[in-house]
Formats: sequence, structure tokens, C-alpha cells
Amino acid sequence: MNVDIGNILTDKSQPSLDKHEFEELAERVRVGHERIAEGRENNEFGYAALNLPETVDSDEIRRKTDHFADSDAVLTVGIGGSALGAATITTAVGNDEVEHYVLDNVDPEHTQSVLNSLDLGKTAVHVVSRSGTTAETLATFLVVREAMDDAGVDWTEQTIVTTGDDGPLRTLAETHALPALDVPDNVPGRFSALSTVALVPAAIQDCDIDAFLDGGKEGAESLSPSLSDCPAYAYGAVSYALGQRGADMNVMMPYAERLEPFSEWFAQLWAESLGKDGGGQTPVRALGATDQHSQLQLYRAGPRNKLVTFVRPQETANVTIPETDIDELSYLGGSELGSLLDAEFEATEASLATAGCPNVRIEIEQLNEQSLGRLLYDMEAACILAGELYDVETFTQPAVEWGKRAARGLLGESEFEEAAAIAEKNRHIID
Amino acid sequence: MNVDIGNILTDKSQPSLDKHEFEELAERVRVGHERIAEGRENNEFGYAALNLPETVDSDEIRRKTDHFADSDAVLTVGIGGSALGAATITTAVGNDEVEHYVLDNVDPEHTQSVLNSLDLGKTAVHVVSRSGTTAETLATFLVVREAMDDAGVDWTEQTIVTTGDDGPLRTLAETHALPALDVPDNVPGRFSALSTVALVPAAIQDCDIDAFLDGGKEGAESLSPSLSDCPAYAYGAVSYALGQRGADMNVMMPYAERLEPFSEWFAQLWAESLGKDGGGQTPVRALGATDQHSQLQLYRAGPRNKLVTFVRPQETANVTIPETDIDELSYLGGSELGSLLDAEFEATEASLATAGCPNVRIEIEQLNEQSLGRLLYDMEAACILAGELYDVETFTQPAVEWGKRAARGLLGESEFEEAAAIAEKNRHIID
Repeated sequence: MNVDIGNILTDKSQPSLDKHEFEELAERVRVGHERIAEGRENNEFGYAALNLPETVDSDEIRRKTDHFADSDAVLTVGIGGSALGAATITTAVGNDEVEHYVLDNVDPEHTQSVLNSLDLGKTAVHVVSRSGTTAETLATFLVVREAMDDAGVDWTEQTIVTTGDDGPLRTLAETHALPALDVPDNVPGRFSALSTVALVPAAIQDCDIDAFLDGGKEGAESLSPSLSDCPAYAYGAVSYALGQRGADMNVMMPYAERLEPFSEWFAQLWAESLGKDGGGQTPVRALGATDQHSQLQLYRAGPRNKLVTFVRPQETANVTIPETDIDELSYLGGSELGSLLDAEFEATEASLATAGCPNVRIEIEQLNEQSLGRLLYDMEAACILAGELYDVETFTQPAVEWGKRAARGLLGESEFEEAAAIAEKNRHIID
Repeated sequence: MNVDIGNILTDKSQPSLDKHEFEELAERVRVGHERIAEGRENNEFGYAALNLPETVDSDEIRRKTDHFADSDAVLTVGIGGSALGAATITTAVGNDEVEHYVLDNVDPEHTQSVLNSLDLGKTAVHVVSRSGTTAETLATFLVVREAMDDAGVDWTEQTIVTTGDDGPLRTLAETHALPALDVPDNVPGRFSALSTVALVPAAIQDCDIDAFLDGGKEGAESLSPSLSDCPAYAYGAVSYALGQRGADMNVMMPYAERLEPFSEWFAQLWAESLGKDGGGQTPVRALGATDQHSQLQLYRAGPRNKLVTFVRPQETANVTIPETDIDELSYLGGSELGSLLDAEFEATEASLATAGCPNVRIEIEQLNEQSLGRLLYDMEAACILAGELYDVETFTQPAVEWGKRAARGLLGESEFEEAAAIAEKNRHIID
């Protein structure tokens, strides 16, 4: 993996970094790296995520998922960090033969439609919640379990659980002797992509999870105090520095359809980790080349308030565009679909650069287990480094608690006073 | 459909609108409406979109798609405005029995994987391009056509075309006597959701396209010079006004999984129409309740630079959460999944309001053809009104041309000098 920051170092870029600012940033990276190294050394809360490639027991994951090898489908029931890593891996490098579905919402119509489409007797269900009490996840699991009962399927044969040491899900697993895995210690959900949390569906799909973890190890080895030698830190540092200079948004725009959920995963990582104390870049999800026909007008001609991050596999499959006798299209015929995508990527990057819109290019060789493991590891390291630079509590998400309590209050638990604020809502309805 | 702007009229909201500013805005809406009414009267470029519910010939769409009634699947080949409206409609109110696939990228692996998954002899292909020369669309169509040939399928029996009066796609349709529909006159792609462009796949799925257009008519009838009587203009006006006061982003967050593509559609509408002359709000795609576990931390505790727009159907399907003997979860048992989603919605809205993050609530009764037609129509009217207030050329997208020319230059057409800029790229690679 490499990161090309050339397009933010020119004075054409607004904002940009000059040589002096770059050196100052490099000094701060050195200090940030020391803190991170210390955190990893002591397996501290959050920093422990960067040790996962070494600490995860892939044999255990394979052993516990072996029972599900013949499944037609795998269904993840989880939300946020319990779902996005798994979806990212299976979409990017998974195996189409065993479809991966995710129920990470409580929309009744969607839940029902997914359940109706599945052959439940051949579906492995992976329920994930650290606390075992996440309302959306547990409510959905209760519905899934009932659907299996109704279909005459023994849900205890189809279910695998990943959870913490105690709580309702742990009790459930023990009561029914379900295969169960531990969520990793000291790792917040959004940093758990290189762990049991995300790897169970991948293992059921027979992905090479060791190669994925090898990619993570490669990322771990690449961490170094020098900004100029460490792609992960370089990305985190320049995103932070541009953010401080007016790039309030970070547009994540992979040029690979299979990386679409990666942008969702990145959006959680970036938003929940850095969106605190009145600061933080807003992640914006995009997709190349599709969004050239949707968002590019704004990126190029709108305000200079965003950094665009491209992610691009250097090699893709060969699909030749057939020759055509249509004159206006003859320039396409005989070339590869991938070459067209490449040309569009380079054109879009240059289009933004010439207009002064800052952008960074992240390249991976090709999209496979190893390069994906490296990419996710490096993005996590980039985020943790950015957290050091912003000086925020990277690994917590205190602002979501208010809403959780209010929702529980609305559902009839009387002890939550936040629910009262809802009744006071100021209405001004136009119809 | 109604719009509740109460949460931006309180002085807690940052930014907010006070009474005086609201009155001033109402005066500008009056003027904007006059311009829009005049544009509609003369069926002017762009404004013509607001006449579509009256001008579209739904009988013709049904007649020309009748041949495809027995299809197992429909495949849209188009990009941007030629794809997003169709995806929005079929996902929101479509019929699962006839799956709708969209090829709106030129990713070789994705294209191949979609083609491999289809029974091509039972797939209707809808190719859409106004000019008939859109590179991504035509390249993809050439690949699809060859795949059909290779599978021994007569592609001329499976293909329907929507295009302009001339160009390669029109010629193709004439040569092979394909069923063909006209793109509407004077309507840019991103404003064509209430036309042939988006309705063909919906018709093949046997959606009630007349009810959808009736929803559009209802929207047309609701347009009025008074901000306080017109939900569409109210939404456009307050989004603009908040944007001018620092809400640089507009987060579109429906609480309905089936509205996920709607946010993509809205993102194109808003970005390409208003992202000009150094201004324009950046649309940010989100989904409730899922993104509470991903983006809410940032929205609540990050910078006050965004407006959050909720879209919420008041009624959803009934799915009861089974009773459970698990103590910690007993508050969930017996209630509806939809009630949980509602509680989460209200809690999230209040969570943002109490933290001073401006938000607007758009409500529809339930998600069906008619309410969706109304929603899309009203969002288009909102966008056009916002364009009047920003005083931009709402209906053009000049900034995407540079990249298009550069890409064609890279693909070997010598007359495009933009391609030269790509060779001059400033590189600073960290690996």
C-alpha cells in the first residue's frame, strides 16, 4: 500500500501544506507514534486494536465456524462496528457462493424481506454484541430466532455468537451450548475489523483469513516514527492538517465497486473516533466512477472545504469492451473496461487537482485478502494517529448515550429522563 | 407530505433562523416561485421537470414494456441521473419478484459478477443515455450485448432503449427495431425521476406508475408562493438559509432501509444543481437507525456545520418482537420492531435538537408509489427553489466536462489537451 500526497503539497491546492508545515507535522507524528507504541506495548484500551493481527486466534475462528461450512448463506445480526467490518471484508474479497446478509437496522419491512428471501435451514446466523444488550441487535435476533422456530428450523444448530465475558448473549450461548467467540479485550467495535467480530462470516465464506491478518501484520511492521516512511501515519497526519485548515469533510472515494462498504466502515471509524469537542472531519461516502456523474460538479466547482481520498487497486480483472461499428464509440472498442475505469480515475484526480481541490491517492496492488487487511489496519492506525493530533479521546463515543437513554425511556423504561425532552419538541409543521 | 422546521426556529439551534430572517426568506420564496411558475409555463429547460407528472405518457411506457412482463429481472445500464431515479423507485416500492440490477459503473469485476448472476434470457435490459454516447453506459452495454450473444440469447429481444432524438443509441434502436422511448425534452437527467428514464424498470416490475405520477401531481398542486403553505419550498428555502449561515452539509437520513437509494438520488440532485460558483451544500448520505451507531457521535459532538434532514414514513409493517425471559431485554418483548425504530428516530431527533444541531423532519404517511412520487417531486421543487435563492444555473453541470475530456484524451483521442495535465501530476509517494 502506498499513499501519494503530492496533490496537497502544491500551492495550487486549497488548503495545502507547505514545506515548513509538513516538517512541523512530521515532528508531531514522531510524538504521536511514541504514544501509540506505548499504548500497544501495554495493550491499552483502543491501542490494543493495533495488536490484533498478532493476538487473534484464527484457528479458533475456523474451528468454531467449521460446523457452518455447508451453509448457503450467512446472516450477521449486529450494528455499527459489529456489522461494518464484516460487510467490508465479505463484499471486497468474499465468496459469492455463500451470500452474506447483514441485519443492522430495525426496519420491519427490510427485516421481513431478508428473512423471507433466506432458506433458514441453510443459513448460519452470527449474532454480535459486546454487551449482549444492544437493543437493535437483540430485538432483531429475537425476530430471527422466532422465524427459525416458525420454519421448523432448530435455531441452536444455526447460530454462532460473538460477545463479551458476560451479559444475555453469553448466557444464551452457555444455556444452549452455542459456539461462541470472545470480542477482543480493549478494542472498541469500530476498531474490531481484524478480529472475531468481522472474521466469522469471512471464515464461513472460506476466505483466507490468515492472509487478511498477514496484511494487518504488514501494516503493523510499517508503523514508524517518520511521516515520510509510514503511509498510515502520512494519511492520518495530512487528513488532520488539512482538516485544521478548512477541509471540514473527508470524501472517501474508492475506484472499486467492491469497496463500497469500505467507505461505510471508514465513515464510522472517522466520525465516531474524531467527531468530538466541537471538531472532527465529516466523512463523506462516494464511489468512483459512478459519483463523477453525481458529486464531481460540487467537488470541483463548490467550496474548498473538502479533502478527497481516492483508493485504487492497480490491477483488476480483464473485461474487453467489444469492437463496435458505431463511429462515435470506436475509441472504446477493443480496450479494457478496467482501462476505462483507470482513465476516469486519473482524469478525475487531475480534474480536482487543476481546480485546487486537495486530494490524496491510496494505492493497493489488487483487491485481495492481504491487501484489504493492510488497508483496514492502516486506516485504523491513521485514525488513531489523527486522534493524537486532535488530542481527543479517540476510543469513546459519549455523545450517542443521550439518544440511547431517550429511546429506552420512550419504550417504557421509566428511569430515563431524556425521554421527557422529546415531548418538549418545538413544532412548526408545513403541509 | 409535511415538513417540520420547528427545530431550526429555536435559538438553541446553531445556525438557526429568527422570525425576521424567516419573513425575509418568505419574501424571497415569493419571487422565486414566480420565476419557477414562468419557467413551467414556457416549459423552459429544467423547469420543464416540474411539468412531468402531466406530460409523461404512462400508457406508452406500459405498452413498450409489455413485451418484458415475464422477465425474471431487469437490468438498467445507465449512470447518474439515468440510474438513480430508477433505483430509488424500485428499491422503495418495487416488487421483489422481478429483481432490478443497475450497472452504473465500469468496474470490470462488478460488471462480470452481475452478468454471471443473471439468467440473461429472462432479463430485460434498459439502456439509458440522452446523448447515446455516455462512455460508461455504452461500454457497459457493449459488454452486456456480447454476454447475451455468448449465452445464445437474442439481445434484440431483451433490450429497450431510452434516449434522445438522435445519436448512436437511437440509430441502434432503429436498426434493430428495438422498443424505444424518448428522454423528456428540456429535463436534465437528475430531474428525470418522474419520466420514462426512471419508470421503465418500475413498469416492468408492475409498480403502479400512475399512482407514482399522481403523487407528482399532488406535489405540483402544492406549489404556492407562500413559504408557510408549501412544504417543498419550505424545505428548499430553509436548507439554503441554513447553508448561508454555516450548515455546509445537508445530511439526508431516512428512517427506512428502502429509502437508502433515495439518499443517493438526493445527493446527485443537490450536489450537481447547487454546487457551483464556489458555493453549495455538500449532501451527506446517512441511514436511520443504522448510522446512529456510526455518525451520530460526530453530528452531536462535532462542528455545527450541518443540517440533518430526517425522512420518516409514519406507518410501517407490523413485526412483533417476541417476548423473552431475558431480564435486561424484557422492555423490548411484545413491542413492534417499528415502534423501536420510531423511538430511535424520535430520540435521535431530540438528541440533535438538545445539542443545538439543526434538523428538519419530513414525514410521509407510508412508503408507497404515491407518497414516493410526491417526495421526489417535492425534493426537485425544493432544489429548484434553492437554485433561485443561490442564484446559480441549477440545470447545468459544466465542471464535469474537464474530466470527461481528459478521460477521452487518455483513451487515445488526440484532440483533448486536458489529458496532458495528468502527466504533470505532482507526486509525493509514501510507501
